[in-house]
Amino acid sequence: MTMFGTVAAFESALASLPNPDAAASAAAVARQNQLTKPQGSLGRLEDIAIFLAGWQGRAIPRLETARAVVFAGNHGIAARGVSAFPPSVTAQMVQNFEAGGAAINALARAAGLELVVVPIDLDTPTADFTQAPAMSEAECLAALQTGAAVVEAGIDLLVLGEMGIGNSTIAAALCARSFGGSGVDWVGPGTGVDDAGRLRKIAAVDAGLAVHADAPVTAFETLRRVGGREIAAIAGAVLAARMAGVPVVLDGYICCAAVAPLVVAAPDIVAHCLAGHRSAEPAHRRLLKQFGLEPLMCFDMRLGEGSGAALAAGVIRAAVAVHAEMATFAEAGVSEG
Amino acid sequence: MTMFGTVAAFESALASLPNPDAAASAAAVARQNQLTKPQGSLGRLEDIAIFLAGWQGRAIPRLETARAVVFAGNHGIAARGVSAFPPSVTAQMVQNFEAGGAAINALARAAGLELVVVPIDLDTPTADFTQAPAMSEAECLAALQTGAAVVEAGIDLLVLGEMGIGNSTIAAALCARSFGGSGVDWVGPGTGVDDAGRLRKIAAVDAGLAVHADAPVTAFETLRRVGGREIAAIAGAVLAARMAGVPVVLDGYICCAAVAPLVVAAPDIVAHCLAGHRSAEPAHRRLLKQFGLEPLMCFDMRLGEGSGAALAAGVIRAAVAVHAEMATFAEAGVSEG
Repeated sequence: MTMFGTVAAFESALASLPNPDAAASAAAVARQNQLTKPQGSLGRLEDIAIFLAGWQGRAIPRLETARAVVFAGNHGIAARGVSAFPPSVTAQMVQNFEAGGAAINALARAAGLELVVVPIDLDTPTADFTQAPAMSEAECLAALQTGAAVVEAGIDLLVLGEMGIGNSTIAAALCARSFGGSGVDWVGPGTGVDDAGRLRKIAAVDAGLAVHADAPVTAFETLRRVGGREIAAIAGAVLAARMAGVPVVLDGYICCAAVAPLVVAAPDIVAHCLAGHRSAEPAHRRLLKQFGLEPLMCFDMRLGEGSGAALAAGVIRAAVAVHAEMATFAEAGVSEG
Repeated sequence: MTMFGTVAAFESALASLPNPDAAASAAAVARQNQLTKPQGSLGRLEDIAIFLAGWQGRAIPRLETARAVVFAGNHGIAARGVSAFPPSVTAQMVQNFEAGGAAINALARAAGLELVVVPIDLDTPTADFTQAPAMSEAECLAALQTGAAVVEAGIDLLVLGEMGIGNSTIAAALCARSFGGSGVDWVGPGTGVDDAGRLRKIAAVDAGLAVHADAPVTAFETLRRVGGREIAAIAGAVLAARMAGVPVVLDGYICCAAVAPLVVAAPDIVAHCLAGHRSAEPAHRRLLKQFGLEPLMCFDMRLGEGSGAALAAGVIRAAVAVHAEMATFAEAGVSEG
């Protein structure tokens, strides 16, 4: 099914977001309060179970099919020296994902996640956004649709990540165009550029903002003009997951930045999302505040690939286990105090 | 083997703490820097793997035998109305642990931990510390030894927890006697007492501090006078684990408070420990600062049982998986930038 065949279809979906199942949420709350522990004493573990119950529409949520997806793309902006790594590393890392040797492979295995790797036209980098829109309308719609396609019926949890040399510069441009500010406000070291590299990133973002200053600030136009294929794919996956009632775990700064243009249009778009972690990238903290999301982990990670989200998925699995497996006071014969 | 048969043996162990294996730590650092990711980009996941390598004495640490232990004890102080639950709940919860229905059961299963439940003389509560020392010397030594006995050769990780109605008041007394301050500084709501209950907890702590004010502030005397059996067992397990090179995951406020008297005598005693989480109990933050430990999780949990430590053990398992399973740049043919 083509969900995002036209810009109008994408915008229509964004304008009519479904809500969680209130009855399932209430049943999950009631169950938590009968389990053999003081009420509320498992803190965020309880919140996570109730959150999943609402979005899955089940009083006892499940994680039988939990899918991690890493979208990969290449970027014209990489030619401006904005990364510590050459653009060829994107394809090399995709091979590493497919061979099972990357961090996301180990983390997905540890959390019991199926891993799907989706390289998108790596041989055709997007245009340099300081010169032109990164993508044509058709290219951006195709990337949104590629993202939507990973949301198959029956998935219990979707864990999102990305790979794309140069895309922390893309992320800063997306945030600045979405929430205001300039390059200096949203650029960080990414995977590890030096001070000169950081200045090149800031200059690129500011040049991009100037070039596209007169274009409308819609979700689609921001994704198309200063985004990239893996970025639009994440946006499409988040929106498609919402339509399908599939809860999502977001990764770090770049993954969240892909959703920023959607948040401007529909602040509630992240209601079905958990922030897997807060990364070491300084602007990620501010971005999560814009989203109103409290990260599950704060481990100073800055790798991408969905690594922080996959780590958090293990914690989410523990929350599901507690909710499903604990005895009630009545079952265990324990006094309720 | 009786490790803590005399007070002198306990104090001697505390005065001669072994250090981690520097060669194994260095080898683990070198391996991390060859894995297919920017150096340092996995943040605390890298630190955890290197920490385990040092204490296990293996460049690639393992978690084949990871053991969670819940020590349980009853307290004379419970008669002073310091808990929202009656003392009979300690034994009821031990039955729940043994039947597999408690939070720690689900969390231990989720993290791949063997669970050992150690109830200690539940039918014989310790003395009310506002009237007399909680334990005799022999009772305290026996509890220390019970803790040491869970540290068997070949254990890769020890996850510690406790159960004992009234023991958040014990914890406050241990902290105040170890680090100064009075009841109001160290008492919180525990599993959920109301304001009147909190005032009773504060009064009990202050009365206990006054009664034992002239006794020497040694690790042993603090454990014996204002501690409890499950508390001394945790202290014994932490010290025995250090002697055996077994890394430890501490749980929340009460578990950490059991180690507080040892930290006063030997600040380095927690070097082989990770703080599994920071609990909702307000004083836990200050206690972790005294220990110099940064918690892995901050989930507003306040259950005890080792629940926060077991949750963190899943994250520790992910750190081990990344360290052991990732490909190096050379193996994967990825450019190092």
